[in-house]
Amino acid sequence: MPIPKAARESLTTMTEMVLPNDTNTLNNLMGGRLLHWMDICAAICAQKHAHRTVVTASVDNVSFAEPIKLGNIVTFEAQVTRAFTSSMEVHIKVSAQNIAAGEAEVHTNSAFYTFVAVDQRGKPIEVPPVLAETDEEKQLYDSALRRRQLRLVLAGRMKPQDATELRALFSA
Amino acid sequence: MPIPKAARESLTTMTEMVLPNDTNTLNNLMGGRLLHWMDICAAICAQKHAHRTVVTASVDNVSFAEPIKLGNIVTFEAQVTRAFTSSMEVHIKVSAQNIAAGEAEVHTNSAFYTFVAVDQRGKPIEVPPVLAETDEEKQLYDSALRRRQLRLVLAGRMKPQDATELRALFSA
Amino acid sequence: MPIPKAARESLTTMTEMVLPNDTNTLNNLMGGRLLHWMDICAAICAQKHAHRTVVTASVDNVSFAEPIKLGNIVTFEAQVTRAFTSSMEVHIKVSAQNIAAGEAEVHTNSAFYTFVAVDQRGKPIEVPPVLAETDEEKQLYDSALRRRQLRLVLAGRMKPQDATELRALFSA
Amino acid sequence: MPIPKAARESLTTMTEMVLPNDTNTLNNLMGGRLLHWMDICAAICAQKHAHRTVVTASVDNVSFAEPIKLGNIVTFEAQVTRAFTSSMEVHIKVSAQNIAAGEAEVHTNSAFYTFVAVDQRGKPIEVPPVLAETDEEKQLYDSALRRRQLRLVLAGRMKPQDATELRALFSA
Amino acid sequence: MPIPKAARESLTTMTEMVLPNDTNTLNNLMGGRLLHWMDICAAICAQKHAHRTVVTASVDNVSFAEPIKLGNIVTFEAQVTRAFTSSMEVHIKVSAQNIAAGEAEVHTNSAFYTFVAVDQRGKPIEVPPVLAETDEEKQLYDSALRRRQLRLVLAGRMKPQDATELRALFSA
Amino acid sequence: MPIPKAARESLTTMTEMVLPNDTNTLNNLMGGRLLHWMDICAAICAQKHAHRTVVTASVDNVSFAEPIKLGNIVTFEAQVTRAFTSSMEVHIKVSAQNIAAGEAEVHTNSAFYTFVAVDQRGKPIEVPPVLAETDEEKQLYDSALRRRQLRLVLAGRMKPQDATELRALFSA
Repeated sequence: MPIPKAARESLTTMTEMVLPNDTNTLNNLMGGRLLHWMDICAAICAQKHAHRTVVTASVDNVSFAEPIKLGNIVTFEAQVTRAFTSSMEVHIKVSAQNIAAGEAEVHTNSAFYTFVAVDQRGKPIEVPPVLAETDEEKQLYDSALRRRQLRLVLAGRMKPQDATELRALFSA
Repeated sequence: MPIPKAARESLTTMTEMVLPNDTNTLNNLMGGRLLHWMDICAAICAQKHAHRTVVTASVDNVSFAEPIKLGNIVTFEAQVTRAFTSSMEVHIKVSAQNIAAGEAEVHTNSAFYTFVAVDQRGKPIEVPPVLAETDEEKQLYDSALRRRQLRLVLAGRMKPQDATELRALFSA
Repeated sequence: MPIPKAARESLTTMTEMVLPNDTNTLNNLMGGRLLHWMDICAAICAQKHAHRTVVTASVDNVSFAEPIKLGNIVTFEAQVTRAFTSSMEVHIKVSAQNIAAGEAEVHTNSAFYTFVAVDQRGKPIEVPPVLAETDEEKQLYDSALRRRQLRLVLAGRMKPQDATELRALFSA
Repeated sequence: MPIPKAARESLTTMTEMVLPNDTNTLNNLMGGRLLHWMDICAAICAQKHAHRTVVTASVDNVSFAEPIKLGNIVTFEAQVTRAFTSSMEVHIKVSAQNIAAGEAEVHTNSAFYTFVAVDQRGKPIEVPPVLAETDEEKQLYDSALRRRQLRLVLAGRMKPQDATELRALFSA
Repeated sequence: MPIPKAARESLTTMTEMVLPNDTNTLNNLMGGRLLHWMDICAAICAQKHAHRTVVTASVDNVSFAEPIKLGNIVTFEAQVTRAFTSSMEVHIKVSAQNIAAGEAEVHTNSAFYTFVAVDQRGKPIEVPPVLAETDEEKQLYDSALRRRQLRLVLAGRMKPQDATELRALFSA
Repeated sequence: MPIPKAARESLTTMTEMVLPNDTNTLNNLMGGRLLHWMDICAAICAQKHAHRTVVTASVDNVSFAEPIKLGNIVTFEAQVTRAFTSSMEVHIKVSAQNIAAGEAEVHTNSAFYTFVAVDQRGKPIEVPPVLAETDEEKQLYDSALRRRQLRLVLAGRMKPQDATELRALFSA
């Protein structure tokens, strides 16, 4: 089994400026464009952990609570949370700021993307386990199991009643 | 309350060709690009139902089981499933085909996007209820409530034990 | 000779949203962008008929009577009309709609593109004949001959006096 | 009536490099991309003549005889041929060259685009007549009338039998 | 005069993936694309310092010693070095890495961009002085004067013999 | 040694229209976009001289004195000035015009880019010397040596005191 690597070694920061073609008629960033950027940042992060080509396996539920405006600067921070053989879960946080107007940065979104490391022919290949060091990293590492069960249930690859981590949540 | 509109009136079909810039080094369509296209198609679909500007509120878990190759033709079919005051859930199905090689079309993904209809100042505004007519439309209409509870739980806006539709799933 | 295929099997629907970079300083869609989209939709349609790589051979006269505005949804519908050995004529209809404002869809353009099916080395290869079934399909099938003569005359590959189908038009 | 302007004053040269996203799976420039570039070059040319915003009114039949390859340099040369009140016909010639391989430049296409000059509200506005000086300019000026009749006939705005310039062509 | 701000407060990190359209026929990143990305990252950095809209005033000599390949991850790090009334000099460092192949990151370029902060009508407006704290920041702060003289000389706005900082360099 | 080629044989003209995505929030063309276009035009020019694939080696100091607005037409004119074994210096002049408003063309920038001609494996390869014919070409040819020394000094590959051409400038 590969030697574990610290979660923080995969930290990836990306910055984008919202241009006219990224916005709808209200001058707000379109959700799909944001999902596209998040995927690129998270994929680079997963590559840093695996040192392999990676392909997107899934994205968990993402909600868009805060509008991001034309001209805003969008910052992405991604880090792996946990690996499962050849797959890696990446946590990505998004914030936006109207810097020119001197406004404060606003946290707008966060999401979990999952990637699979593959070899040159596209076959899955084992990746290093993730070493969680800080409290936040440990909390994300532990809860990764529950999110993974939810993904398997939603993909129809696990029966809800077998998802022991999830069941605990829903039984009062 | 606005007059209900049939789900099928919102049917939106979109077609894209996978170009080099959409692919990774394995010549596979990148997940983020697909999420971007799905958002555009689903947004047009929601606009057709609401006849209003719409903004993406969330996307549910999407998994990418089938690689889509450079040069493939990707087809998107979106239809609203149910409306909740000012928000609409859209179901979108994606398929891909290497037409030039005479291969059969492959269903690759499906997802649920949620949109909110807004007025000129960006304030939410009521949309027509959805009229489900076919069996598939009715099944999607009914299950929309469960998906909505999952979204609220995942966004931290509903306690798991209050999500009655979900709890039923996880209690054997 | 390949087995004939019904015209309707090639039906291709494409949808685009007009973004800022597609427009001129009056916020109208630029003609060249529309021609680009029409070519992509028509090429996919020709691919569906031929199940081969196709290359654009020509586009007939296109006129732009109706301005299409920023934010409008543009819908393309393409179908093959007739095949001539390795070439196919595709009829494409364009309509535009300001959906968010609740306006009706407007037919804006139609055009005929011609494609040639080619093998891996770029050599022309025979395609199935087109089976015209509806009255409109039959009318387009019959008139394809006249349009083909006009193309050959305009390309300097046929003498006007040999274009019997065209001559009939111009002799009172 | 505005003072006539020499055709050569509108001469516009544009150069493009064929990038991966402009090509099909055979690494040939897609026809629609070429039509897009031709429209931009011709529009700039018409603007130079009219010193007004211009909108594309039509493009005449274009045929694509020579494939243009990835990495080629494409050169466009556009010049107005004749004005009709508020509309201008632009002649555009396209050539391509694999410069890096030391190959000769190849003439690949030519086309006629028509533009209408408009004021700030989009209303047509008169443009200067065109002064044809060289033999080629005079030949293009004279034949513009025949092309205009063909456009009107094809758009259903002139009866074939009234197109006297065209009828002469088809009656042996 | 505005309160000085620490150089490190303007630190901006940007990450890009080299896609096919960014490369030449040798699959190397084109220099112009890199200059474009550097400008965006440096502009965001200058915005962070000034909290104003900024416009590019100049870029100093940039040399491209190391080729950057298709699929590489390019990382940009920008920080202001010194302010001169309404203008700011930004130092930007670029490195590239073939992460998937497990190769080490390579420093490929560095450059100095200059920006001017402007108000809503585009008029220059004063910005905070820069507080250099680390040794590298102090060295960059001090040498900024010499680079500024070179810019003025090259722009023909200062006579070489008046550029005292530069003269010292060239007199043995 | 290859046969010398006249500078004017490399003359390359490029025209671009400023679109929304090329501009900042003041509707001015972003500097990085301009640098990108200049690099493409200069690279084509160097290719014309060398008849080889070329890679950008450096760009000299560029200053942006004149804002270029949305909708303006930008014209680039590039010509080689001098060759040094496998490298070529290209002079590029940029002008912009609001043609639709009938404004005069404004010279906005000029710059010197340097390119290296390479073979299929990316190895430098000799190019023809440049034949300067007009007075301007001769002046650019002669001063190329001084600019080359400045580049070498700035890249740390020549000591300032060895740059004899530069020293002459700074010693009153």
